Amino acid sequence: MNMRDIIIAKRDKQSLTDEQIKFFVQGVTDGSIPDYQTSALLMAIVLNGMDEHEMTTLTLEMAASGKQLTLPYIEGISVDKHSTGGVGDKVTPILLPLIASFGVEVVKLSGRGLGFTGGTVDKFESIEGFNVEVDTKDFHMYVIQTGMVISGQTPDLAPADKILYALRDVTGTVDSIPLIASSIMSKKIAAGAQGIVLDVTCGSGAFMKDFDMAKELAEAMIKIGKLAGRQVVAVITNMDEPLGRFCGNVLEMQEVFNTVTGKGESDVIEVVTELAYHLIKIAQKDAGMSEEVLKNEIRARLSDGTVYEKYKQLIESQGGKLNAAGSPVYVSKPFDCMHVNSPDAGYVQSIKTDLIGQASVLLGAGRLAKTDKIDYGAGIGFFVKVGDRVERGDSLCALYTGEDSQLPEDKLYDAMDLILDAYEIGPNPPEKKPAILGVIT
Amino acid sequence: MNMRDIIIAKRDKQSLTDEQIKFFVQGVTDGSIPDYQTSALLMAIVLNGMDEHEMTTLTLEMAASGKQLTLPYIEGISVDKHSTGGVGDKVTPILLPLIASFGVEVVKLSGRGLGFTGGTVDKFESIEGFNVEVDTKDFHMYVIQTGMVISGQTPDLAPADKILYALRDVTGTVDSIPLIASSIMSKKIAAGAQGIVLDVTCGSGAFMKDFDMAKELAEAMIKIGKLAGRQVVAVITNMDEPLGRFCGNVLEMQEVFNTVTGKGESDVIEVVTELAYHLIKIAQKDAGMSEEVLKNEIRARLSDGTVYEKYKQLIESQGGKLNAAGSPVYVSKPFDCMHVNSPDAGYVQSIKTDLIGQASVLLGAGRLAKTDKIDYGAGIGFFVKVGDRVERGDSLCALYTGEDSQLPEDKLYDAMDLILDAYEIGPNPPEKKPAILGVIT
Repeated sequence: MNMRDIIIAKRDKQSLTDEQIKFFVQGVTDGSIPDYQTSALLMAIVLNGMDEHEMTTLTLEMAASGKQLTLPYIEGISVDKHSTGGVGDKVTPILLPLIASFGVEVVKLSGRGLGFTGGTVDKFESIEGFNVEVDTKDFHMYVIQTGMVISGQTPDLAPADKILYALRDVTGTVDSIPLIASSIMSKKIAAGAQGIVLDVTCGSGAFMKDFDMAKELAEAMIKIGKLAGRQVVAVITNMDEPLGRFCGNVLEMQEVFNTVTGKGESDVIEVVTELAYHLIKIAQKDAGMSEEVLKNEIRARLSDGTVYEKYKQLIESQGGKLNAAGSPVYVSKPFDCMHVNSPDAGYVQSIKTDLIGQASVLLGAGRLAKTDKIDYGAGIGFFVKVGDRVERGDSLCALYTGEDSQLPEDKLYDAMDLILDAYEIGPNPPEKKPAILGVIT
Repeated sequence: MNMRDIIIAKRDKQSLTDEQIKFFVQGVTDGSIPDYQTSALLMAIVLNGMDEHEMTTLTLEMAASGKQLTLPYIEGISVDKHSTGGVGDKVTPILLPLIASFGVEVVKLSGRGLGFTGGTVDKFESIEGFNVEVDTKDFHMYVIQTGMVISGQTPDLAPADKILYALRDVTGTVDSIPLIASSIMSKKIAAGAQGIVLDVTCGSGAFMKDFDMAKELAEAMIKIGKLAGRQVVAVITNMDEPLGRFCGNVLEMQEVFNTVTGKGESDVIEVVTELAYHLIKIAQKDAGMSEEVLKNEIRARLSDGTVYEKYKQLIESQGGKLNAAGSPVYVSKPFDCMHVNSPDAGYVQSIKTDLIGQASVLLGAGRLAKTDKIDYGAGIGFFVKVGDRVERGDSLCALYTGEDSQLPEDKLYDAMDLILDAYEIGPNPPEKKPAILGVIT
């Protein structure tokens, strides 16, 4: 077997055999296949696709390319959640204590943010003292003790995926359903998940711009899951506007605190409830409750202090500081330095959420390069969202930087311009999209 | 401008701009674009194609990527000929003295053979003393003195094409009309040709297996030529059987000698006459003769000693030895070591010419790797060709090695097996294809 024949097979629209995919993934992992052959195959896959059997084989081979996490102390079905990324997506920090309160143990291996979608690890690091660099012993101990852990240390999981991802980024081969689906699923499977709930974001602030694309990706991952013997549910969520009222690290964690203490935004609660419902059900911790009863119970626990208690436990177990009132202490204080006002009267028709994300990065809330430092206090608050009425001069957004920020004024004005471009104001009330666009099983 | 955006544009079926193609070719030439990005773009081109404007820009940029030959002493239009390769293709050594006898000066930069198509340089090197490593001064002097030169020293012409070709070979991106056409045309343009006559071989022994593919390649090169301001004629020739009676270096040069002394095979004469006609006409050395008159004159000069005199001049000017009778002295003497006999009676229906080429390489006449040594005396003689009648036990082919060859016996038997596979014998006379399948201008 040789790599050139494998490339030619895919170029000529053939399905790759299990042996060919295994040869490819092993060669990528051990470095025996040069990058120029790998990128030629990746482009052939982007243009000629892969069938579900090929995608599944690719997923399992990538999952098997490095260490695979085992969680022997989890009774029943271990679950994991993955989001394809969005702006203002603060779901994970709420979801973890929420499902833990139902006895669903969950380990969360998260990355730092790159580009305009924030990383869960960065958000937790905006809490004073919170340690995400968890060593292996502590990692397992935290799960045993609290049912939760959040770790930025992703051990050598699916190294083939890491190599391929870096190459895809520079060779224009990112946009491919089979490659995206197998990349996500390989990491989840390597991390030991038996059940996987996918938050497939959809809209201007997401990787998948329209519902059909999001559905296609969701279906591909569900097919892979079925063939790989995993339970998978995909929830397609709206990213045609930011989730909740804030984006930015401290700002979002403040909103997380509000949500776990019963003062959450309705769209955040809706997404969290839907994802929690499926996770609890797959993990078989639903105690026979009907969907309606379980969802009501979930919402109740967000208000009655149950989730808040688990949230405090998560923070304290990993070294995070709480003040006397029981609220987290943050590493930076957001400073409201400019309001962007509406140039017209009317209804907010749409918010180009990618531009919001870019504005947030300009303010310092995100990274463009891996080595960029972030300003934890920076971000944006949304006074109005899609469907809201504004008069001329009303504030659309508040721009924040950290209290000690040295942000040059021109960046602030660039961010303002992006916000003005992002908000479309029109005379009539638009059709408002729900937070949950669909559930695919 | 960056390479990733260029890859994405072609991936998304856009036409590349002149600036994008220039950026790509320069980056390939100076090494600033990594191979893995180049191969991703090559695969996108293979699968999504290029329009004629893109092909032309790519051709001219590759031609401009290194030195460009100028031939200031050639009056009128400088011409060149290119063949896409075949088995038994001994056209160039006949064509050079033939057109020189009409005053058409021609420089021939040729490669050594690799795979089953022989190289013109190897054929000339089978003449004792013939020097193809011509330095720059001698190169131009030979053309001025004799109107002809054959050189294996290809100076730094179209280095971008060399780099791309090496990468295409290992990344499954050879089979692409735009890439093949621009590769051929860039080298011809860099070599200073104003008029180009293409011998596009077609059939089992050629790169283009059927007429439609050959026509598509021919048309692509003609379009490039037109847009680049070059005159181009393509002659599509039959490679569903070997050309002439022999393949192998000395064997073919003996056949060349026969042809320039009036004893040529009809298919060889037909191809040579057609190509010579177009070369002479483009170079404007036709003296107003009609096609019929000029072709008759060409055939006459092959028989009346005119071409033979020029051929002797070509050989002697580059150091080749002639014996007392005026015939070249060869570096090896072919030894007829085995006849392959027909297992059936009937008519030769077809000859799988790629298998003939492989048999010839097995005998030692060609190289599989660049460093392989060749046996100049090795090759195959064809007693029968397509349409000929054979009885059971009649000889189909003679297998030759050089007199001093140490060829292991099993290779001889492997070659015999290939010959038996190649010849298809059937009960009825087949339709015989002409040597010239079409002329495209």
